[in-house]
This record gives sequence, structure tokens and C-alpha cells, in this order.
Amino acid sequence: MNNLLYDNLSVNELGHLTVSGHDTVELANEYGTALYVMDEDKLRENCRKYTRTMAECFPEGSSPSYASKALSFTGIYKIVNEEGMSVDVVSCGEIYTALRAGFPAQRMYFHGSNKTLADINFAMDNNVGYFVIDNMYELECVARCARERGIEQKALLRITPGIDPHTFEAVNTGQLDCQFGVPITEGLAFAQAAYREEGIELMGFHCHIGSQIFDFVPFCDAADMMFEFIRDVRNACGFETKVLDLGGGFGVRYVDTDPYIDVEENLRKLAEHINNVCAELDLTVPSILLEPGRSIVADAGLTLYTVGCVKSAEGCSNYVLIDGGMSDNPRYALYDADYTVMLANRAGEKADYKCTVAGRCCESGALIQENVMLPQPQPGDIIAVLTTGAYNYSMASNYNRLCRPAIIMVSKENVWVGVRREILEDLVKCDM
Amino acid sequence: MNNLLYDNLSVNELGHLTVSGHDTVELANEYGTALYVMDEDKLRENCRKYTRTMAECFPEGSSPSYASKALSFTGIYKIVNEEGMSVDVVSCGEIYTALRAGFPAQRMYFHGSNKTLADINFAMDNNVGYFVIDNMYELECVARCARERGIEQKALLRITPGIDPHTFEAVNTGQLDCQFGVPITEGLAFAQAAYREEGIELMGFHCHIGSQIFDFVPFCDAADMMFEFIRDVRNACGFETKVLDLGGGFGVRYVDTDPYIDVEENLRKLAEHINNVCAELDLTVPSILLEPGRSIVADAGLTLYTVGCVKSAEGCSNYVLIDGGMSDNPRYALYDADYTVMLANRAGEKADYKCTVAGRCCESGALIQENVMLPQPQPGDIIAVLTTGAYNYSMASNYNRLCRPAIIMVSKENVWVGVRREILEDLVKCDM
Repeated sequence: MNNLLYDNLSVNELGHLTVSGHDTVELANEYGTALYVMDEDKLRENCRKYTRTMAECFPEGSSPSYASKALSFTGIYKIVNEEGMSVDVVSCGEIYTALRAGFPAQRMYFHGSNKTLADINFAMDNNVGYFVIDNMYELECVARCARERGIEQKALLRITPGIDPHTFEAVNTGQLDCQFGVPITEGLAFAQAAYREEGIELMGFHCHIGSQIFDFVPFCDAADMMFEFIRDVRNACGFETKVLDLGGGFGVRYVDTDPYIDVEENLRKLAEHINNVCAELDLTVPSILLEPGRSIVADAGLTLYTVGCVKSAEGCSNYVLIDGGMSDNPRYALYDADYTVMLANRAGEKADYKCTVAGRCCESGALIQENVMLPQPQPGDIIAVLTTGAYNYSMASNYNRLCRPAIIMVSKENVWVGVRREILEDLVKCDM
Repeated sequence: MNNLLYDNLSVNELGHLTVSGHDTVELANEYGTALYVMDEDKLRENCRKYTRTMAECFPEGSSPSYASKALSFTGIYKIVNEEGMSVDVVSCGEIYTALRAGFPAQRMYFHGSNKTLADINFAMDNNVGYFVIDNMYELECVARCARERGIEQKALLRITPGIDPHTFEAVNTGQLDCQFGVPITEGLAFAQAAYREEGIELMGFHCHIGSQIFDFVPFCDAADMMFEFIRDVRNACGFETKVLDLGGGFGVRYVDTDPYIDVEENLRKLAEHINNVCAELDLTVPSILLEPGRSIVADAGLTLYTVGCVKSAEGCSNYVLIDGGMSDNPRYALYDADYTVMLANRAGEKADYKCTVAGRCCESGALIQENVMLPQPQPGDIIAVLTTGAYNYSMASNYNRLCRPAIIMVSKENVWVGVRREILEDLVKCDM
């Protein structure tokens, strides 16, 4: 039997994988496949690890801000709002969806390296609380739009500290040479410009060193650099930083060789480190923001597929073909991302058949995972891919003109449709 | 000035890039950016290279079949229908869209390695002409559905010949060890099973050796293997192959170091080779199908973006940020795909500024192209990325909750909206 990775998963007396007590095979039968399933209880528990611990260890005004690019739909914003989190948004689309969910605009942080004028105006028209300003050009644009409205726009500045947290390059955004933010070496001029810019109420700074980080140490490194920077800014122009956003990225377990991370313990250690650094540097500890995205939603999700053909040709790998693929999960095609794959309807059986799980898109690279061990699959078996709550639905496409799957939300008490399955009519809605 | 790659592109007296005589800067102003622009004349010319030459050189019934996964929307099926092509479809979504365009079902070839029962039934209910059956399991499913309807379903069988055309691995589908088709070493049993299967009218075979192939020789290699196979099948069970589909893949120029390929000349040489091989093997030349996708639409398309911030920090690459990215073109993120990039509004200026063109998605890998030479860009400049007609819109996502761009069709006489731009309401249409 596979390692189930998380304790909300289990195997029932039928040998079926369950999530939050719900039989995944029944979910597949009722809602069809491919199907995203999200465990709402797990998701809320993930939120609370951050909200409780941050309230306990960090100064007033500190908060986790859900990085909603990991998974954005109306229902998710309702949940994180109920859990008292802030949200990070990166586009008008995310702002619009969050507003539709009743999420208070004042608790939105508008990120992104290239906000257009239309974006800036849309966000201001909707009273988005904070802009996280990426660069000097954007600072001017945001300030101008604010002055036109006669407002002072609260803002953080994105600083690139030059930390390599030894994570995968494509999701490593903290190194100096990247498209995001202003290098810390040029940060002082950026800060001074923002501090004196009419229309901008400078609140503090933001950095993001990467994702899939499995302990608090890289965040401490980032904090060290940022607090020295904050001190330099204070000394240079008198600005007292009120907010420091240390970015996202505690890691999640995709496979059983990934470590388990105790978010609460790591947050406590980070808080302790921050208190010490600020004391050393004679700084008041500002409000701390963190931006969990993946670590809120990834392990709350799994994807169910139905097996079609199983191919075992002489001299070739074994291929298990499923009714989804890179259109609903492009992460193997993009990053060779690891996933744990199992047979949901035979979850108790010995996994002794080595195979490649291939999606249905007409493209060689359209695999979900290679070298997977499963019980010898048969057509009609249900495949479960674990830890798909982040960057699956949000990156899904209609490649091969496939309809995007539904997202079914489950909790101990409830099952509800978060996102309905696309239908054929949806595919042509923009065709003229 | 950049090499413009194709003769439908030019630079007008304002220094603006034109496509089919239309000023791309005016198109950007009128329709907004990011924007896909397709040259309908070029697209039709690409179709005609195949239709005319194949009618001239191959037996009756031969035809190019547009591989519509490269670019699928209602208007494109209308055009390829008017041009007398068949189409390859790989999903209910493509079938539905083609039918909506009035495309005759009898000229559709239904490909795909994992057609579900729902797919098979949908295709049969809509009288799709040909199934390209991928494997033995699918053969049984298709035959059963056909028998239930009392019909004989015309079918080709997908055979994997084991050819390596030395193209990029991720789009190389002809090697024996892949998720597609039945290896030629096991093809005889597959053919015999299909030939005797009630409900199946076996018409012939299909293979696909890869894409971006710049001359006819790999197709000759595939033909050699397939005709020997066809002879073996005839000798074994008496089946006379009526149709041979040799797959897709003449290459297109993404950058000026890519060769120019004369499709007509290569088709003539392929036809000559096929005639010789069939004569040697004492076979009647069957109808030949080819499946151009990329080579029909790629070079007819380009994408326009507006420049936002231009970053030039000490010790870092220069970054030019644009208002689109991997959400509308994931091919650099997926394959490090080459593209030619230029400033559409300053197309005549010297390109002496080396930079990385970065998309607006919040992800380090979300680049469009590295090491691009442009005239030093300014905010508001219009970037053109050439040869984006294939696998851009079709692979586009709403990542970062961005709206997918419009497709504007231009021809010497006309400008029309092929696909309208998504709006915010579209993003939440499935949110419950």
C-alpha cells in the first residue's frame, strides 16, 4: 500500500481511498472524472495553523495572506475570509473573484510584477487595501492614479534580497537576477522615492525567496537581510517600517520522501528569530505577513481519474492511460513535479506494477508521473493523484479542447460543488 | 532590424510592423493587448500548399487533415472546410466546435490515445467519419459501440513505427516506447483483430513520427516501415490497405536560424518515394493522409503585448515586462521554445538591447524568451512575438486568473474577431 501522506486520507473496508471520510470511488461515480476533490476541513486546519500561531507569536496586525494564485475560485475566498486570513491577489481576475465572494477589499494585497494601468485603476476603484509595488515605474503609475483620486494608497515595496533557498529554479524568486522586485542593493533609493511620493502611504516591504521551503532557516536569512535594510532605510530617511511581508513558501509533501513540516513550530522559531534580530538592530518589530498558498491548499486536494487502456508492450514501459492529463495538471510537463499516485478503488492492494501514468492529451510530454508503483491497473479503475490542491486547477487549460474538471469540496458534514465541470458550450463561449 | 521570418510581415512608413498590410500597432490600440493576430490569407495559403500538391501527387482520396489541436475555434474549422481539408479531432470539444462551424462529420478523423466511452458514443452519435484507434482495448470499445448501433465504423489503426526523427523529445511520438498506438512489432495482431472485428470497417493505418521535421526523409523512413507492415498484413490476412495516414509535422520557422521548408517540393518527393516503395512491394498506392497542424497555423499567427516596466539593475539581466505571458504562451516554460521577438512600433530601429522578455504571471519560469535583442524598450511599446499561431491559444490557461486574449483575424480585405477576449464574468462562470 502506498504511503497516504496525510492523515485525512484513509482506506475503508471496501479497500477504497477515503478523504475526510468520503469514499473517493463514490465521488468519482457521482461527479465523474477527471475530478478535483478538496478537503475543506483540511484546508481550514491549514489556515488555522497560520492564523493562530501568527496571532500568538507576532505583533498586532500580523497575518497570513493566502496567495490565491495557488487556487482561485469564489468558494475558496469565502473560506479563507471566514478563517480570518488576508489574501494576495495578482490580477483583476483574482480581485473580482474575491470581491464576488464578499472578501473585504481592505484585506487584499495586490502583487504582481507588471500591473497595467487598467489593473491599478480597477484595484483602486474597488478600494483594494494594499498595493505591493514591484518597481520604480510602477510606483509612479500607482502614485499618479492615487493622486488623481485624491487618496493616499497604502503600499509595500517588493525587495529582492538575493537569497537562494536551494529550491527548484523555476519557483525560486528571491535571487537578485529575476524579473521580480527591486534588488536590495538598489532598495534604498526605491524606499526613499516611495516615502516621499505624494499619493503613496508607505507601510513597509515585501520579499519572496521561493517556495517549497521545508524549514524556517531561509526565512530567517531573508529576515536578517530585510531588517538590516529596514534599519538602513530608517537611518537614511526616518521611515519606520510598519509591515514586513516575508513571502510564502513552507513546503508540502508530494511524495513520502518529502519531509513533514510542522508549520506552527517553524513559525514560532521564526518569530523568536525576528524578535532577536529586531532587538539587536534596535527596531520595533513590525507587523509580519506571510503568504502561504501551496501550504494552504495543496495537501487538501487530490485528483481522481478513470483508467482507460493499460499498455504493456514488449521492450516498452507500461503505460496507464487516464481521462485527464496536462490540461488539468501541467506540473509534470512543466517541472517534472513529483506526485504520489495510487489506485483509489484498490488502495489496500500490493503496488507491484511499475508504470507511467499518461494523460489523454496528444503530446508525448503529457504525462502525470513516470515510474509509479500501482497494483496492476485495469480499465475502469480509479486513479488518485495526491496533493493536487495547488497549481492544478489554477493552471488548467482547455488544451485538446478538453473541458476543465469540477472541484468538489468535502468536509465531515458536507459535500458541495466548488466549481462545476465545464461543458461543451463553455468551450465556444468566446468563439464569434 | 529583426529578420521578419515570413513575407506576409513588413514594416510600414511609421516603422510599424504590418501583417497582411495591417498595422499591428493600430490592431493593438483597437483591440487591446495581449492579442493574438492571425493572417487568414497566410493560413489559407498554407492549406492550399497541402491540398493542391496532395491532389496532384497522391491517389484519389488523399488529403491533408488539419490537426486542430494546434488551434481550435469555430472560425478555423470554417476556413479549413472552405479549403477542402479534412480535420483531425482529439476530443468531444473539438468535434463539437467543428460541427458548430458546419464541418462535415464524415471528414473528421477522431484521434487520441484514450477515448472514453462517452467520447466514442458522442462521436458515433454525430457520425464522425473515421476513428483512429489507438490500441486493442479501444478497438473493443469502438466495435462494441458500433455493434450496438448496427453500424460498421470506418477506422484506421495507430501503429508506432519506432522512428526517431531527431526532434525534440516532448513532441516526438514515433518512438516505440511511448503512450501512443501499438508498436509495429505487435501491429500484425492488432490489424488482424481489427480486420475480423464485427462493427469495424478497417480502412488502414496511421503513424505519427513527431513534429518540427524539416524535410521529407523521416516521412520516407516511416513510409518504408509502414508499407512493409502493410504488405505483411496483406500477406497474413488478405487486407488491402485503403488509407495510410503518415502523420504530421513539417517544421515552421520560429527563428531565423530555422530552415525554410518548401512544403510542396517535399510533398512531391515524398509522393515519388511512396510510388517507388509501393511498386517495389507490389502494393497499390493507398490514399495518403497527412496531418499538418503547426504548419497550417503557426506562421499565420503573432502575439502583441504592451511593455510595462523595463528593468536594468546592476549585475542583473535586463527584464522587459509584458501584459501577458505563460498564461497565453506556455511554450517557453514547457520546452524552452524559441521565438522571434521584436518591437512592433519601432520595427525599423536597431536592436542592440539584450533582454529577457518576462510575462506577468507570478512565477520565475514565466518567461516568453531570454536573450532577445530589441531596440531599448520603453513602457508602452508594443512587443510582437512571431509564429505563435500554433499551441498558444490552444494551450492558454487562466493562470493568475488572467483573461485569455482575443484572436483577431486579418486578411487583405478584412478584419474580424475570431475569438473575443475573455471578460471577468467569464472567469467565474463555473464558480458555484
